[in-house]
This record gives sequence, structure tokens and C-alpha cells, in this order.
Amino acid sequence: MEKILEEVLNSNRKYTNYGQVAGYIPELKKAKRDDLGICVIDKDNNIYKAGNWDTKFTIQSVSKIVVLAMALMDNDWQYVFSKVGKEPSGDPFNSIMKLETNDTKKPSNPMINAGAIVTTSLIKGASLEEKEERMLKFFRKLAKNDNLGINYDVYKSEKMTGDRNRAMAYLLRNDGFIQGDVEELLDLYFKQCSIEVDTLDLARIGVNLASYGVDIETGERIIDEKVSRIVKTFMVTCGMYDASGEFAIKVGIPAKSGVGGGILASVPNTMGIGVYGPALDKKGNSIAGIKILEELSQKLELNIF
Amino acid sequence: MEKILEEVLNSNRKYTNYGQVAGYIPELKKAKRDDLGICVIDKDNNIYKAGNWDTKFTIQSVSKIVVLAMALMDNDWQYVFSKVGKEPSGDPFNSIMKLETNDTKKPSNPMINAGAIVTTSLIKGASLEEKEERMLKFFRKLAKNDNLGINYDVYKSEKMTGDRNRAMAYLLRNDGFIQGDVEELLDLYFKQCSIEVDTLDLARIGVNLASYGVDIETGERIIDEKVSRIVKTFMVTCGMYDASGEFAIKVGIPAKSGVGGGILASVPNTMGIGVYGPALDKKGNSIAGIKILEELSQKLELNIF
Amino acid sequence: MEKILEEVLNSNRKYTNYGQVAGYIPELKKAKRDDLGICVIDKDNNIYKAGNWDTKFTIQSVSKIVVLAMALMDNDWQYVFSKVGKEPSGDPFNSIMKLETNDTKKPSNPMINAGAIVTTSLIKGASLEEKEERMLKFFRKLAKNDNLGINYDVYKSEKMTGDRNRAMAYLLRNDGFIQGDVEELLDLYFKQCSIEVDTLDLARIGVNLASYGVDIETGERIIDEKVSRIVKTFMVTCGMYDASGEFAIKVGIPAKSGVGGGILASVPNTMGIGVYGPALDKKGNSIAGIKILEELSQKLELNIF
Amino acid sequence: MEKILEEVLNSNRKYTNYGQVAGYIPELKKAKRDDLGICVIDKDNNIYKAGNWDTKFTIQSVSKIVVLAMALMDNDWQYVFSKVGKEPSGDPFNSIMKLETNDTKKPSNPMINAGAIVTTSLIKGASLEEKEERMLKFFRKLAKNDNLGINYDVYKSEKMTGDRNRAMAYLLRNDGFIQGDVEELLDLYFKQCSIEVDTLDLARIGVNLASYGVDIETGERIIDEKVSRIVKTFMVTCGMYDASGEFAIKVGIPAKSGVGGGILASVPNTMGIGVYGPALDKKGNSIAGIKILEELSQKLELNIF
Repeated sequence: MEKILEEVLNSNRKYTNYGQVAGYIPELKKAKRDDLGICVIDKDNNIYKAGNWDTKFTIQSVSKIVVLAMALMDNDWQYVFSKVGKEPSGDPFNSIMKLETNDTKKPSNPMINAGAIVTTSLIKGASLEEKEERMLKFFRKLAKNDNLGINYDVYKSEKMTGDRNRAMAYLLRNDGFIQGDVEELLDLYFKQCSIEVDTLDLARIGVNLASYGVDIETGERIIDEKVSRIVKTFMVTCGMYDASGEFAIKVGIPAKSGVGGGILASVPNTMGIGVYGPALDKKGNSIAGIKILEELSQKLELNIF
Repeated sequence: MEKILEEVLNSNRKYTNYGQVAGYIPELKKAKRDDLGICVIDKDNNIYKAGNWDTKFTIQSVSKIVVLAMALMDNDWQYVFSKVGKEPSGDPFNSIMKLETNDTKKPSNPMINAGAIVTTSLIKGASLEEKEERMLKFFRKLAKNDNLGINYDVYKSEKMTGDRNRAMAYLLRNDGFIQGDVEELLDLYFKQCSIEVDTLDLARIGVNLASYGVDIETGERIIDEKVSRIVKTFMVTCGMYDASGEFAIKVGIPAKSGVGGGILASVPNTMGIGVYGPALDKKGNSIAGIKILEELSQKLELNIF
Repeated sequence: MEKILEEVLNSNRKYTNYGQVAGYIPELKKAKRDDLGICVIDKDNNIYKAGNWDTKFTIQSVSKIVVLAMALMDNDWQYVFSKVGKEPSGDPFNSIMKLETNDTKKPSNPMINAGAIVTTSLIKGASLEEKEERMLKFFRKLAKNDNLGINYDVYKSEKMTGDRNRAMAYLLRNDGFIQGDVEELLDLYFKQCSIEVDTLDLARIGVNLASYGVDIETGERIIDEKVSRIVKTFMVTCGMYDASGEFAIKVGIPAKSGVGGGILASVPNTMGIGVYGPALDKKGNSIAGIKILEELSQKLELNIF
Repeated sequence: MEKILEEVLNSNRKYTNYGQVAGYIPELKKAKRDDLGICVIDKDNNIYKAGNWDTKFTIQSVSKIVVLAMALMDNDWQYVFSKVGKEPSGDPFNSIMKLETNDTKKPSNPMINAGAIVTTSLIKGASLEEKEERMLKFFRKLAKNDNLGINYDVYKSEKMTGDRNRAMAYLLRNDGFIQGDVEELLDLYFKQCSIEVDTLDLARIGVNLASYGVDIETGERIIDEKVSRIVKTFMVTCGMYDASGEFAIKVGIPAKSGVGGGILASVPNTMGIGVYGPALDKKGNSIAGIKILEELSQKLELNIF
């Protein structure tokens, strides 16, 4: 298996020459564009790695699926979906327009920024500190990695350049989808985006989702079964920004990407996959990462459709 | 199995009281709102039926998946997807706005009307007659039913009230996504929508997609494998109009609905399902039909996520 | 006065180097980009001309104000404004989006194509021929020019390339804003756009509007007073496509432009002006034409604000 | 003249029964819906009053024209219009969508909230205090009323409920149209909206604009002539929210309304008018106020078109 991973990495290495490393904050620009790594964990807990599998990067939008799972476990589902929709939007992740033109003004889904700001607001906790602590704890549990932490340089940059997210959050508060202090909420949101991971962490979260929420090593249930299915469903319909449809056609695996260059894939009842390649296409997805998953899906027959 | 189907039908019969039978053309209004039928064909070719499984209704938007398959088999895929997109749009099926505001002006996907008009235009044939004949033949082969034909009353009504589709088609021609005579193309489009089927026909098409395009009885390949996957992927991301995301979460099965009241579902490698219940919700989906599929998905563990 | 006109023409001749002659149909491309002409008729019926004042060009969108006047004289105003709005839209002249996103779906105003198609549909007449005849007669009366006629080459080209207008018309019919045969209506619409004029014709129509609808030579009322005011109001708020606001600020005169290169201006109680310069900016307005009117407005203190 | 004003007031008093007093903040709800007042100042400085001419109300959006004048006098015009557009938008005053769908993302004009936030940001001053002081001074000078001041209850309410304006402001900062601290800027913006005036104040500002910026009593130039024309032009194209087009047709006078119930009208070279009637239509304009101006325009022949 590791040989296959090496081959797939090598045959797609050429794609690291295309696209751009995310540049909206200086810290992200520091990523090396030819880094390429992958980690696979199957349901028998075999771990396979290749390339820069242990390079650290910030989780960015991949965090949206973890926070969605947490929001669904912290709250009544009906309440959650009264604040955020279930439909792919076909718009870029940072689009505001739909908030105004939708009948409901509700964010279309929890995978776009506006929707993720809502799910972040639904994390329980008496204080910002408690919420942050609970959130980090959940990420660490899912990744089985107690060292998971926040990259504070990235966090500060996100906070400084986050006016578009601020605009969304105030609009959401105006329309009753979030409550409380906007700057505090965004603080939590920027922190969740700035959690530092490697492909092993992503693969571990992926396999936990693939196993319907049961820790495959210990047998402990860490995510509700139905929640694990809901999360994977959103990964298919909206996980790859406004290229989700194309990815579903080409690859056919639930996956979530982030502008840090990571992609988390979760093949139901089969395996979790973490991929890293920081050069992104215009939609914000890792170009080489997608190509690797496409080839892997064909070779290992992972397409769920 | 038929007992299960009976039970599921009965426990959801109450939902036939909600919503409305499609009323935009008189012929559709004639449907009986408490009719409810289902047919399942599994991959061993066992056929199970319950309720008004043999009531006839027009296929309407369910035809979009068949015509998509045909367009992909008649043409180079890259060419097809240069004329119609792959992304869910989050807009109603008859929305025109995205045709104007998209960067590309390309219809978002082949499951909305604008996109389906494009795929219809890609059916090969020297004349309108030949195209119609080839199309009908393909529907009959997929449904294993040589009696499949057009309901001409519905067709004429569609033609008479089809100004919104005309508007789309002229805009599509203006922007280079279709060519040739618009009224001829719409004629073919209205005919494909007016094909009369029952749930057995839908289940048969569904199981042929579920078996990756191989006729489970004869072993004959009737759809290219990859095409069968593409079609099922579109069914998940955009098959249930702008309620596709919610359906995927609740039911988790590739499906396509039509305003005639039918839903075709295809569980990969498992079974095809046809459901009929003409009372629709505001998005255009059969209310009881969705409820039945939701319960069936839970009982038979059909959720693919 | 003619000296002033000569000077203004000369000082703005350099602007004929900018922009493009309309190219969407071959006939319009034949215009000579350095042609520049002007004609002024004041309320004492003095006529002043300079440059290529008698070059012929098609009236295009300038016709929209004449047809609006006719629609308002042929129909009850309340009825007219139940079919077309009164508000500037801020969108390009050929925008379809607002037809879908507006609460009413009504075209915003009679100066955008969709709105003008509506006003054209309101011209009375038992047959297409009678409507065409009445329309031409009205244009001829307003321009005091019995030789006014249709450029059939332009008309045919418009008809052939008019799919975007067709799309609008079918959408308008779908939503109940127009009735009857779409192709017939568009025929009339394309004809009105293809009427051939020179700047003398435009100035004459302009002075008739400036004099509140009374023929300054004969004293005959040819347009209802209030209608003449409504028309001039629309010229200010929407006469120069989506650059109307800027033109009102810079020039401050009711005016209507067309992609044929003409601009008709009407200074209330003062004068009518026709300008011709076929090189257009991106919004569809004559670049030199605007500059000439700006300078003239300052020199002659014509700004109404 | 005062008799005419009395008559016009009385004949339109019935319209105070329609519409609603603004209710988005409690303080505005306190207005008495049958209050109706008017003040006219002609260019010979004759002052005519009727009804509740001296009832106090907050200036709200009427302030936008004063701040626009100030922004144009404090800055290079080209710079101002690089940050805010000149075109009517056809959208409600608090629309955000156009900020995203416009090519430039620039607010369409200074009469919608987003545009007014921009012009407010262009007021010069070393500190918030200095800006506020300069702004108040300019309002007082234009109104010839040193007692003009801020209603702090309204101001605080505006501040508390201003999330939609906050959303706009952060989006504007994100796109480079404003700079600096958003909350400080909004503070100034909410204050300008909360200035308390009566119809005499509005009529005085109106006559100063009508006289092209020269104080008709002292002969002092208080607004640049061209600026006074620009302001009146915006009043015509966008002064009455998304009912500006209709108002221009019916009334034909530059005017600006506010949700406090006031309308300021300025008839070039003729007179300034202040009207007050707090019951508003759905667009945010005083219903009786519009009716009064419509009748007055006809009686006194004030229509500029």
C-alpha cells in the first residue's frame, strides 16, 4: 500500500507546478509549493504514509466538518438546521449574496463561511475560554493527538484580515442566525481555522468518520452514527467549495478541503485519507491533492457511486 | 420484502394529505392525490411491488438522468461539460438568474431545466424524428419496456405553457450553449418530459444504474460504467431540485424526482426503486415519496454515507 | 451659435479615437468612427448644424422614448405602468436578472430592452402592419420628416441576432407582461430600432419634447404635455443606460442614446439637440457625443439642476 | 401662499391614515402619525409655514445629501467618486447584494446606506470629535440654525440595532472603500442620522441648494455651485429610495426623504421645501409628504422636466 501511495504521489507531483499557494495572509504564503504528502488509515487501523505526510499546516476549512459534528452533538438537530441550511449553494465559500437573496436569508450550508460561523456559534460553553477548550479537546480526540494546537501567527493574521467574515457575522446577527458578541465568536472561528495538523491527523479524523463515529482502535463511540453520516453527506455535496460537484464526479469520495492545502477524505466503512499539497486552484482546493485522490479512487475502487 | 413495502406505504400514507398535485398544466392536475405506489428491483432481479405500483404518470424531470446518460454516450464528455456544468446551483429548477450571473453563463448542471435543455440538444440524430426515435429507444431499453410512449396531451400542454423554457433556450443559444432551431429542440425536450411510466419502469432504470450499467438479467452493458456513476453522482448532488442536500442527509440514496410525482432511486450495487405519489412540496418533490424512501433507507440500511 | 457648435465639435474630435463602433451586427460596424455631427433647434425654431449633421444612422435605443410616448398616448397610464416600472435599474440595458429577482418580475423601466419590448407591445393596431404604419407615422410626425424609414439590412441583422431579446420576450410573456405572438412583436421592435435618422431628426424630436409636446412651428399639440414630461424624466433617470447617473451629474440634460451612435437631448423649454458619433463606450454611449453635450451644457448653461 | 399650503395640507391629510411610522427603533415609533407640517422658503427669502411645521424629528437619510456636499467640498471629486458611484441602483437603501455583484463592488451611489457610509468616512478631521464638530457646524450653517443637535436616544438606538450597517461597513473596508475604525465611523454615521430638525430647517437647506449654494440672505457662498448641482442631481435619480423614478415622474423636483418622516425638496432657482409626515410607505417615504409635494408641484408649476 505504501508503494501505491508513493507511486500516486510521484505520478501527480507535476501538478504542484500549477496554481498558487494561498496568499491572503503572509503566514500561508510561507508554505513550500512542492511539498506533497499523504496518509491513509484503513478500518483495521493500518497506517500508510508517503511524502511530506508529517509537514504541519493549518486546518482551515477542513475544521468546518469537525465543528459541524460538534454543533450537532451539542444541540438539537432541528435547532441547528433552523440556523443553517442543508443545500449546496453553488456560490464561492465567502459569498454574501445568498444571505440576502435567499427567501430565508439563512446560510445555505455549514461548509461555506457564513454557515460555519453559525455552527461555531453553536458550540456550548459558559465562556469563550470554555468553548475554545471544549473545541480543542474534540479536535484532539477525533485526531487522537493531544498535541494539536493553534498556530497563533496564522490566527492573528486571520483576525486582522477578517473583515469579510465580520461583515457576514454582523449580517447573520442582524437576521437572527447568531447571537452575542461578534468579535468573540470570530475569535473562536479564526482559532478553529488556525489549528495545526498533518496528514496523519486528517486521516485519523477521516477514518473515525468512515467507521460511523466509532474509534476503530478502542471501540469507543466518539461521534453519533447519524452525525457521522450527515457530515459525510455535506462533504459530498459541499465539501470542495464550488467544485464539489466536479470532485464528486471525478473522485466520488466524501472530502473536505482547506486553503492551508489539506484535504480530508473519508471512504465510508473503508478508510480515512489525509492529503497535503499547498498549491491551490482558483476555487481554493489543492490541485495535486485532488489529482492524487482521483487516481487513488480509481486504483483502490473507492468511488461510492 | 413486499410486506415491508406495504408497511412503509401504509405508515406514510398520511403524507398524501400534504402538498399539492402539480397544477401548471391541466393534465397533471388530474392525478389522484392519494395514489401511492412503489416497486423495488434488487440486483438478483427480484421484483417487489406494492400499492399503485402500476399507475401511469409522466416521467417529467426524472427523464433528465436518462438524457444525461445518452448525451454522455453520444458525445465526448469534455464537450458535454463545456456546455453544461457539474455543480449544484442551490437555485430552483427553472431559475434563469445563474445563466446571467455565473462567470461562464453555463447552466450549472444537467438536472436543472436549462442544463437538461443542453443535454437534450446533444442527442445525436440527422433529424428531429431520428433523435426522438433514438431517445425513445434508449428509454425503452433502460426500462426494458417496449410499450413506453409519449402522453401527447401532456406534451401539448407543456408546449403551450413552455415560455419560461423558451426564454432559457434562447438565452442558451445566444450564449453559444445550444445551436439550431429552438422550437424543434424544445419539442424533443417536452416529449422526453411527457413519457409515460409506472414505478416498475423507474425501478428497472434504477437497478440498471445501480448495477453500473449492466442489464442484470442479460448481462448486456447498456450504459458505460463511468457514465452510470456520473449519473448517480448528479442524482445525489442535484437530483431532488433545491432540496437535494436535505434528501441526501435524510435518505442518503441517489435519486431523481419529477413533478409528475415519481421518484427514481438507485442504490449502488444493491437495488433500483420507483416510487409514485403525486402530491408535491413547494420544491416539486413528492412528499409521501420522500417519506417512504426515508423510512426504507433506514429499514434496509441503504444510506451510502 | 453655429460657430459655437463648430468649436465644440472640434475641441472634442479627439474623443472619436476612443471606444468602439457597435459590432454586434455587421451593418453597424460600417459606420465611420470619426464622423461627428450635431444639430440644435431652439424654441424659436432656429436650426443650427455642424459637422456630419446629415449622416444617416439607425435610431436604435433612442426609439424607446418615442415608443414610450406612443404607448402612453395609446393606453391608460396606469395600465402601462402595471406592465413596466418607473425605476432606474442600475443594470445593463439587456439584463435579464432583474426580471427574475424583482418582487414583481416587471421590467424596471421602459428604457431597458425588456421594458421597451413591453411598450412596443402596447402600440395599438389591428394587425402588425397597422401597428408598424402607426408607429412610423408617429416617428415621422415628431421628426417632421416624411422620408423617415426603416433600414432593412439593419432590421434583418437585428432579427437574426436577437436571441437575447427573444429570451426576454418569452420570459415577459410567461410572467404576463406581454401577450400574443412573440416573433411578431419582436419584428415591430427590431423595426423601430432600425429607423434611419440624422441629427436634424433627433433635434426636431428633442425640441418637440422640450416644448412640452407642442409643435413650435405650427402650434399643434403632438404629444400630451404630461407625457412629454414623463418622457424627459425617464431620459434623466435612465436615458443613458447604466451611465445615466453620471451623465445627469456631468451634463444635467434629459437625453437618450442609442448604439447607432446618436444621442437625442431635450432641454425643457429651451431646445432640442441631436448628436452623432458612432464610437461607443462600454455602456453603449457615444463617447464624443457625451463630451460634446457636456461642453455645450456648460457653455450655454443648460444644466437643469 | 400660506393659504395654499394650508389647503394642500388639508386635502392630503387623509393619507396620514396609510402606511406605518418607522418602527425599527422604539424612539421613532413615538412619532404621531397624523402630524403633518410644511415650510417653504423662496429665493427672496419669504418663509411660509403650515401645520406642524415646527415639530421636531430626526433627519435620518436626508442627512445623506448634506454629508455628500461636505465630502465633495472636503475632497477631490475624482477621489470621492472612486469610492462611491453615481448610478441609481434600483435596490432598497440597505441592500448589500450590489456590493458583491457589481463589477467594481463600489456602492452604487451616496444615497443608499453603503454609499453614505463612504461619504461620511470622507469628512475631514483629526479625530472623531473634530469630524463630528465640523459635521454639525456644516449642518447648522446650511440650516442657519445654531441649535441643531443630536437626539441621543435615537442615536443610541441606531447604534444598538445597526448590525446591517456594520455588515456593510466591514464589507466596504474589506474591499478598500473605507479605512480606519469601523465602529468610530458608524458612530459618526449614526449621529448624522440622529440630528433633530423641523421643516423650517429642511426648507432652509433646500433653498440654499436651490440658490446654487449661495446664502440668499447674506450672499455668502456656503456650497460650491457645481456641488449644489451634483447634490440636486442625486436627489432626482436616487433621493427617494427605490421609488425615486416614480417620484420624479409624479413630482419632478429634486428631493430627499428620511425614515424620520421628513422630505427636503429643492426647486432649482426657485425655492426650498421641508415637509413632515411620519407615516411611511414600504420603501421608507412619507406617504402624505409625497402627496403634498405632488399637489404643490402641480399648483405652483414646479416640475423641472
